[in-house]
Amino acid sequence: MTQIRVLSAREISQVFTVTDALEAVEDAYRQKAEGEATAWPMVYEQFEPGVADMDIRSGELAGSGLFGLKLTAWFSGNPSRGLPEVFGTTLLCDDATGAPLALLNAGAITGLRTGAAAALGVKWLARKDASRLLVVGAGHMSTFMVAATLAACPSIGHVEVWDPRKEEAPAARVELMRGEVQAILEAAGAMREFELVAVADGKAAAGAADVIITITPATDPVIQLDWVRPGTHISAVGADMEGKQELASDLVAAARVFVDDRAQSVASGELEVPVKQGAITPEHIAAELGEVIAGKAQGRTSQDQVTVFDTSGIAVQDLAASRMAYDRAVERAMGTVVEL
Amino acid sequence: MTQIRVLSAREISQVFTVTDALEAVEDAYRQKAEGEATAWPMVYEQFEPGVADMDIRSGELAGSGLFGLKLTAWFSGNPSRGLPEVFGTTLLCDDATGAPLALLNAGAITGLRTGAAAALGVKWLARKDASRLLVVGAGHMSTFMVAATLAACPSIGHVEVWDPRKEEAPAARVELMRGEVQAILEAAGAMREFELVAVADGKAAAGAADVIITITPATDPVIQLDWVRPGTHISAVGADMEGKQELASDLVAAARVFVDDRAQSVASGELEVPVKQGAITPEHIAAELGEVIAGKAQGRTSQDQVTVFDTSGIAVQDLAASRMAYDRAVERAMGTVVEL
Repeated sequence: MTQIRVLSAREISQVFTVTDALEAVEDAYRQKAEGEATAWPMVYEQFEPGVADMDIRSGELAGSGLFGLKLTAWFSGNPSRGLPEVFGTTLLCDDATGAPLALLNAGAITGLRTGAAAALGVKWLARKDASRLLVVGAGHMSTFMVAATLAACPSIGHVEVWDPRKEEAPAARVELMRGEVQAILEAAGAMREFELVAVADGKAAAGAADVIITITPATDPVIQLDWVRPGTHISAVGADMEGKQELASDLVAAARVFVDDRAQSVASGELEVPVKQGAITPEHIAAELGEVIAGKAQGRTSQDQVTVFDTSGIAVQDLAASRMAYDRAVERAMGTVVEL
Repeated sequence: MTQIRVLSAREISQVFTVTDALEAVEDAYRQKAEGEATAWPMVYEQFEPGVADMDIRSGELAGSGLFGLKLTAWFSGNPSRGLPEVFGTTLLCDDATGAPLALLNAGAITGLRTGAAAALGVKWLARKDASRLLVVGAGHMSTFMVAATLAACPSIGHVEVWDPRKEEAPAARVELMRGEVQAILEAAGAMREFELVAVADGKAAAGAADVIITITPATDPVIQLDWVRPGTHISAVGADMEGKQELASDLVAAARVFVDDRAQSVASGELEVPVKQGAITPEHIAAELGEVIAGKAQGRTSQDQVTVFDTSGIAVQDLAASRMAYDRAVERAMGTVVEL
């Protein structure tokens, strides 16, 4: 009899922590660099342009013994009907037998795995003495950027948050964020001291930061070349479809640039606009971050260098994170095991 | 809170009948012809050629208010480990909100929906007075061919089964098959009188048949042009990948030919070899069966014509059948509703 374990958002949030996400995504990047992880072609369908779409991202993580898929459906009209704007569902299968293993609510994983990606860029590419982080964007996802970076990078203790869409500092949002970040760190047993403040002057904050994480839906760059001091690392997370851009093209051209996936970054990530404008060519990419993790490529090569890591999210990252959540749930006998 | 209904093979076999499958597949074909059904690009991966592979077939059935996917994993070594050779899993989502609706064991649906496809070819293309059916191939799937055709076509009452891989009549298999067919018809409240006999002389049986259904893994044709009398209808089910062929190319060239999907039939169905050999061109296809059902194309145009319907199975057929199984399960409060 075939059985499958179903893991709800609530259950995943109880077993899957930010340190799990960091370990899983780092392993997925490494597997990709070592040829153990494969992403298969994405299926994408717009039901109504700008209103509703869905995609199916699938692939194999041979080093983790699984293949699977994540179906993400975005229906912008849902919130007005009291429904989530995004439904994400992940199906994992055993790659030795093809048997379905688990069905997971992907929503509970997406925030942590995205924060982990940004934080791994910081961990592997920022200066070792980096202490000041600026997060650009004050939405729901910013919480995960802060929590994952604090968990991954002990040297970072001062965090500023800037909302480029507003003239005032996002003070009320940052108060909420502090509690959210603490809860995420506590769930992982990784609570530590940190400062978290809202700022109104993005240019000044960028100039004082050692690390910048951008997590906005911007289609016009929000960080300019002359805002950034030498030695800064930037993890650019927001740009995930054609037309989006968070960093000025000349800033990208002046930096040593890393990506999660070369082709995707140029097709629909932060590098899409700079390449189309001719500011850089795809050969400007120094390496995929996984190649740095696997010791196949050099990361930062000088203290004064500006480094950029562009991540728009890849299927193997979801598979690795989902596998980790599944393993944790099995250990703790959580989830609902259903006959299939 | 998001919930999903999980339907096991056992539960599906209790709620989903051969008459449901006929209704669902006929509706899916019609929706396809009327532009309400869309198949998205297939994702296909060979883990080890000839040993293990998987595919993800997805699409939308707008007329049924859903989109979804079916992941099929084939691992030929599984039976020696006591596992099924094929694992099929279907995920259905609401196309008005993107919300996941149901996860189904596709295995319990595949047999009935495949039998229904073959039977709909008979229903729409055979002569109205057709009474004798020859099924070529005596494997597990042959049962579904017989049951669905008996359910769809009241005029057919005599069924012969021939195994082209063996010299003797598959008598023991046909004894088992009789009970299986009766059980399928009884579950649908569609029990009726029929004769079911094993035959050893395929050529003689083909020459006496009004309808032939081929369901073999043949890569060399098992039915020749001169075996078939005028007015015969053939539903060709077995050829579902490059290199497979059940009907001689000159037989296909002499027939009025229908398919479930033009592109797929030429790429990997029964028409692949005849087209590659130059025996026909893709323009030889008279219509998709859905166009006949929707009244957009003519089916059989004379009593003496040989008609061929090639079906290798399309995603919208699985989606329609899965929707029907889901609706029946909801009506009867079956399946396991799980928080997601």
